[in-house]
Amino acid sequence: MTIVSDFTVTSRTEAEALDRTDPLAALRDAFDLPPGIYLDGNSLGPLPRATREAMRHAVDVEWGADLIRSWTRHDWVELPRRIGRRIAPLIGAAPHEVVAADSTSVNLFKLSAAALRMQPGRNIIISEPGNFPTDLYILQGLAAFTPGTELRVLDPAQIEGALDEDVALLVLTHTHYKSGRFHDMERLTRAAQDRGALVLWDLSHSAGVLDVDLNGCNADLAIGCGYKYLNGGPGAPAFLFVAERHQAAAHSPLAGWFGHAAPFQFVDDYAPAAGIDRFQCGTPQVLGMRALDASLTVLDGVRPRDLQDKAQLLGQIFLERVLAKGDASLRLLSPREAHTRGGHVSFGHDDGYAIVQALIARDIVGDFRAPDAMRFGFAPTFLRYVDAWDAAEALLEVIATCEYDQPQFRTRAAVT
Amino acid sequence: MTIVSDFTVTSRTEAEALDRTDPLAALRDAFDLPPGIYLDGNSLGPLPRATREAMRHAVDVEWGADLIRSWTRHDWVELPRRIGRRIAPLIGAAPHEVVAADSTSVNLFKLSAAALRMQPGRNIIISEPGNFPTDLYILQGLAAFTPGTELRVLDPAQIEGALDEDVALLVLTHTHYKSGRFHDMERLTRAAQDRGALVLWDLSHSAGVLDVDLNGCNADLAIGCGYKYLNGGPGAPAFLFVAERHQAAAHSPLAGWFGHAAPFQFVDDYAPAAGIDRFQCGTPQVLGMRALDASLTVLDGVRPRDLQDKAQLLGQIFLERVLAKGDASLRLLSPREAHTRGGHVSFGHDDGYAIVQALIARDIVGDFRAPDAMRFGFAPTFLRYVDAWDAAEALLEVIATCEYDQPQFRTRAAVT
Repeated sequence: MTIVSDFTVTSRTEAEALDRTDPLAALRDAFDLPPGIYLDGNSLGPLPRATREAMRHAVDVEWGADLIRSWTRHDWVELPRRIGRRIAPLIGAAPHEVVAADSTSVNLFKLSAAALRMQPGRNIIISEPGNFPTDLYILQGLAAFTPGTELRVLDPAQIEGALDEDVALLVLTHTHYKSGRFHDMERLTRAAQDRGALVLWDLSHSAGVLDVDLNGCNADLAIGCGYKYLNGGPGAPAFLFVAERHQAAAHSPLAGWFGHAAPFQFVDDYAPAAGIDRFQCGTPQVLGMRALDASLTVLDGVRPRDLQDKAQLLGQIFLERVLAKGDASLRLLSPREAHTRGGHVSFGHDDGYAIVQALIARDIVGDFRAPDAMRFGFAPTFLRYVDAWDAAEALLEVIATCEYDQPQFRTRAAVT
Repeated sequence: MTIVSDFTVTSRTEAEALDRTDPLAALRDAFDLPPGIYLDGNSLGPLPRATREAMRHAVDVEWGADLIRSWTRHDWVELPRRIGRRIAPLIGAAPHEVVAADSTSVNLFKLSAAALRMQPGRNIIISEPGNFPTDLYILQGLAAFTPGTELRVLDPAQIEGALDEDVALLVLTHTHYKSGRFHDMERLTRAAQDRGALVLWDLSHSAGVLDVDLNGCNADLAIGCGYKYLNGGPGAPAFLFVAERHQAAAHSPLAGWFGHAAPFQFVDDYAPAAGIDRFQCGTPQVLGMRALDASLTVLDGVRPRDLQDKAQLLGQIFLERVLAKGDASLRLLSPREAHTRGGHVSFGHDDGYAIVQALIARDIVGDFRAPDAMRFGFAPTFLRYVDAWDAAEALLEVIATCEYDQPQFRTRAAVT
């Protein structure tokens, strides 16, 4: 199925028909889903059934019974690499170019710092305003910590013109966390490399939902999140990618023992592991790794192109229905064209917070991002086309009837 | 009970008598222990029963059913601080001086880098040879990454004499991972501070087993491991301590969004949280945090002095029995005096690896640290005095009968 950007459906019956021929329909059964429509898989993916069982085993058998012997008996020591090999085909990487470790924030620090050291004489890092906060914060922290380094935050339209011989690194989030717009990875990578800069892509909102092709774009470095479309569980380990051609020259500033060439020799001097392993750091978070590894089995053998096609069509059905029937209080914050959009769709509304709460009370779970964005994620693994249709209908009804205009929906929680 | 350093027992009957009056005896029932004698709680603590249940709930209810709502409904966002408050009384810290985050390695990087920035004009970090490898590696990585910084690795006897006006930071592991010898925290802290240096203590082999008194020693900075005597599970989150007086001036180079003053405002500019929270980084590893938090309930209200007294006496019973009956092939690698020793005891032996494997085959689980150390941990929470006695007898028998001299015990695994 090829999705053209203006394709959509105009009735629930048409959505049902799409579900009947959906090549990914069977994936839904892999999850343990709560009642309702979960449109927040882009923030925290739901629990796969296999993961529930894997966690039972990890706690009761691996930790509880076998204890320290599990490092070998249950191959704990291999988990970061095994997860890397599972993620690689989802992002167009080779198996030995990806490893799971730490958090997205920590991995961004590692790879950005490594890139700076690979670029002597260049001291500028470029990113864009409104990037996911932790990306900007980590780069600000890195710049504060490395005198001479400057972070320039430029509107995307200015970036290509600003790439000069002082730029060490361009750091962009591939799919924007709020709008869902994704960058042209190939063009921006080439533009930066033409000027001698390296590029680091944050794939947090892309991996597991878009047809990312890192090596097809000649990408240098990438990081991403384990708990969104990869369904690794709350606070799951993150991943990182270093292109094979850079692995020998890239050095992590966080030279922990799991990045050592021989961690169990217990020698005093650091010697980096030969390949991607040098970007591991401390002891891997085994419980989180076990959950992520089990969850990734859901995506084993799934074609990223199929994930992207379905996610974009789900979003398009929702978006077009809301635009067709909604009033002027709704502001589309996402690209209308499916082919430039990742898995989520955002609408702005002055009462966005309360509307999201009213939908949650109906078990239709999206999220809210200050100041006004209602964000709805269309994970292609467990959602049906009718879910996208029904979610649009619910949103329209909640607004049309002012169902959201109740005190209990306006009380803000500290975390949304 | 006050333990004098040469007190021990000379029969199993005496050990049984100690168990009958042990004020910590009831803690054993809090754990789900495998058969045998587990002497590796200093490497990976066993599974508390409460943690097994907490993990069921975290996976099935919090992640599986409540999903993203759990950040508030199950207080995920509070976990790092709650764990910090639970650890604080075990290490002589105030509740607002400790937080759980990342790994020991990552936390060492954060605090060492912060200390360097707090010490303008000083560029030397001192540590000791044979320190736990990741500590030395992280410091080497930090030095490589911050031009001008020099790491000096000095024998402990030389350290006090080397503290001059160029020394920014002294980094020591309180209890040595191999020998179990612990440093005089108060004296070394004062010596360093007298010369204007800061001190960072790695409490990985001390927290939950020794009567650590950070504030009583006027400590500056500390880090520690969650998966040893705190029983947080494999690869558990680590913790860090920053004395209140330093919190306003200390800045993490890893400026992730969970260290921001208002992480859910999604603003572009980093502003560090007011207190210890600024040393959080990315999204907390919720599954690991849940396990560590539940496991720490075992130690709620337990007096660190009782833990230390029992751990040292357990070790003493084992050590003295082995010395009394063992042959010259055994070399004591630990201090013989209990009052300078943490929870573990190490003996060197040319066939140490095979002996440890032979003991494991008897379900007496210690570990081996290259090149020759057999390490036996005496966690005071779940071990009995008879276990220490029986373990000594087993070790003596395995050596006396050459039970270890079999091919299956000599085959080295990649991880030991």
